[in-house]
Amino acid sequence: MYQFLHNGTVTSAKGFMAAGIHCGIKKRKKDLALIYSATPCTAAGTFTLNKVQAAPIQVSKTIIKNKNTVKAVLINSGNANACTGEQGHKDSLASQEYCAKLLKIAPEEVLVSSTGVIGQTMPMDKMLRGIKTIVTKLTDDGGYEAADAIMTTDIVMKSAAVEVSLSTGKVTIGAICKGSGMIMPNMATMLAFFTTDAAIEQPFIQTLLSKAVNTSFNKITVDGDTSTNDMVTLMANGASGITIDEDSADADAFADALTALAVTMAKSIVKDGEGASKLVAISVIHAKSESDANTIAQSIANSPLVKTAIHGCDANWGRIISAAGKSGVEFNPAKTSIYFDELPILLPDYQAVIDEDKALAILEKTEFSITVDLGEGEFSSTWWTCDFSQAYIRINANYRT
Amino acid sequence: MYQFLHNGTVTSAKGFMAAGIHCGIKKRKKDLALIYSATPCTAAGTFTLNKVQAAPIQVSKTIIKNKNTVKAVLINSGNANACTGEQGHKDSLASQEYCAKLLKIAPEEVLVSSTGVIGQTMPMDKMLRGIKTIVTKLTDDGGYEAADAIMTTDIVMKSAAVEVSLSTGKVTIGAICKGSGMIMPNMATMLAFFTTDAAIEQPFIQTLLSKAVNTSFNKITVDGDTSTNDMVTLMANGASGITIDEDSADADAFADALTALAVTMAKSIVKDGEGASKLVAISVIHAKSESDANTIAQSIANSPLVKTAIHGCDANWGRIISAAGKSGVEFNPAKTSIYFDELPILLPDYQAVIDEDKALAILEKTEFSITVDLGEGEFSSTWWTCDFSQAYIRINANYRT
Repeated sequence: MYQFLHNGTVTSAKGFMAAGIHCGIKKRKKDLALIYSATPCTAAGTFTLNKVQAAPIQVSKTIIKNKNTVKAVLINSGNANACTGEQGHKDSLASQEYCAKLLKIAPEEVLVSSTGVIGQTMPMDKMLRGIKTIVTKLTDDGGYEAADAIMTTDIVMKSAAVEVSLSTGKVTIGAICKGSGMIMPNMATMLAFFTTDAAIEQPFIQTLLSKAVNTSFNKITVDGDTSTNDMVTLMANGASGITIDEDSADADAFADALTALAVTMAKSIVKDGEGASKLVAISVIHAKSESDANTIAQSIANSPLVKTAIHGCDANWGRIISAAGKSGVEFNPAKTSIYFDELPILLPDYQAVIDEDKALAILEKTEFSITVDLGEGEFSSTWWTCDFSQAYIRINANYRT
Repeated sequence: MYQFLHNGTVTSAKGFMAAGIHCGIKKRKKDLALIYSATPCTAAGTFTLNKVQAAPIQVSKTIIKNKNTVKAVLINSGNANACTGEQGHKDSLASQEYCAKLLKIAPEEVLVSSTGVIGQTMPMDKMLRGIKTIVTKLTDDGGYEAADAIMTTDIVMKSAAVEVSLSTGKVTIGAICKGSGMIMPNMATMLAFFTTDAAIEQPFIQTLLSKAVNTSFNKITVDGDTSTNDMVTLMANGASGITIDEDSADADAFADALTALAVTMAKSIVKDGEGASKLVAISVIHAKSESDANTIAQSIANSPLVKTAIHGCDANWGRIISAAGKSGVEFNPAKTSIYFDELPILLPDYQAVIDEDKALAILEKTEFSITVDLGEGEFSSTWWTCDFSQAYIRINANYRT
């Protein structure tokens, strides 16, 4: 049992403070965020699979790999500190160390994260001045400021929290995240930071996070691109006094709540995808295996032809079935049905039953689902995608300049 | 030794006739093409790998697989005859049979091909009336009309021919093709028809075509989508009296000419990609294996973020190296160099040496190359891509309606 909190954020979980400030990496907007817990946290993380990994990814991965407890995560936007070589690595460590020193904690208790332009060295004078300021700005309700400070081309701030009712009491999970281009699975292409006041030991905390990420952030796509920087972390400080054990009856309830929060955050990223005007769930059902369902759903969700047809409100089921076909998965197109929400568009044996008026009414909504029923097995997978608009091109043709 | 002919086309090769007419599948534009050789031709073909394959693909694949000789290829545009089930298959065979009957040849001597909207049954009355007309319109210089009749969203007609000087005399290879969305490797997403007056036996003709396709049509991308219908065929009628044997010294010369023609046709498709304003060669060099080079080049060529940066004339090498990184190939980004034409943009150890003015001058050209030097091995691969523009979205958002 869980419920979303009104104005929930990372500081909704007990014992977490946060702040977001402008330190000068960007011209005017906030560009530095800090999340902090005085109590040590177990921590889990998932990281981009891009072979080109930014310096902070390498630093934070090591912390998670070593199963250190952590107390803080320091995030800057405006500069990715990626493809910056040895200097970039030094800069990332220098930020981590300086932040730790001011917080009077160990460097390996500070996770670091960056997002922004690739290939430019960090303006370390601004960064260090910023760190000096931000440690003094931490507050119990600073989650929204942190959410604001991690945005790049995002239009909407992304922040939420759930309260989970367990047999032994209540715990809270909070989250902030940012998109919004380069959104594509296997972790890549966004940042998300989860906090909880539950106590969760290693390695179970990593299992919980990995599972939640796999059905949320790893199932969204804006443009099929995958960045060098992206990461999701979960910090658990135990401030609620409640422990989530792998074997306890409450483990499933907590996992469900964490996944629901992760799906909400992931959908908020797609919804705010660069130039996106629609959020579309692509569900493939009755596949022969989960892998088949996932591969086909991903292929449809990533197809520029499907995404432009959605943008143009065109009930072009041919592009949907063609995108399924190009996925490489063996299936029988003659057995396939396609639905927009509950409305059948295609029934088996290629019966196009499309009611253009009703289809248009669905396609004009800002949120709907496309279901592809393969009629072959019992496995399913859901991805989330957005439409492909002229605005995406405009935003990305002129990002760096 | 080969040279491109002025106004070359499929009928430039001796003994081939062609025609292109309007039969009513489309409202006004030409929509039916026929290529014909009175002398039987050996034939090779490569076909889409999409699991959803149009009826004519299945019919033509069988002919190629059985190594039949052929005399004609019948192509319609405006309707893909894909996802049309049993009726679609019957319609494709009915067209093939009727065309064969009027040409007084066997049905299995007629290859068939379709391109256009998916999921609508063929207007067979129009198609059969069209076939009755087109067999009377065949001429020795009808290649251009055929090229015109196979176009869909193409803006430019695509037609060319090369004359090959061999030790025993001259042969000609002609070609027509069409794009222009859904352009993506493994054959998919376009139609191309090659003719030659050389005599080439099976299975060598298939080897020649497969090799040529692999370095041309399988290395181009407009939007990463792959269609249900696409095919490339090569017909060899021997009218020149010259035979190309696998073992002869002339085999390489012929293969080079065929490949050069295929590359030219493939590039013409990218150049005319939906909404494209630039043709960009993506070359990956000094990779550890050909497969590595190919995978990285494909990943860069397909990246919407790279393609939008090209559109916006943004020398964003971070997106290029990030697209290489997401390909899954192991390489050392710190060893990587990037060039626009001959201009270095990035040198090893992430030295960005970018001269913005010179870079801009290259990015503003309608044709240039991006070379990614991995500095690790001796293998290379070249892909061709185009920029991603607002016009692509406009064209595809409103294709069917």
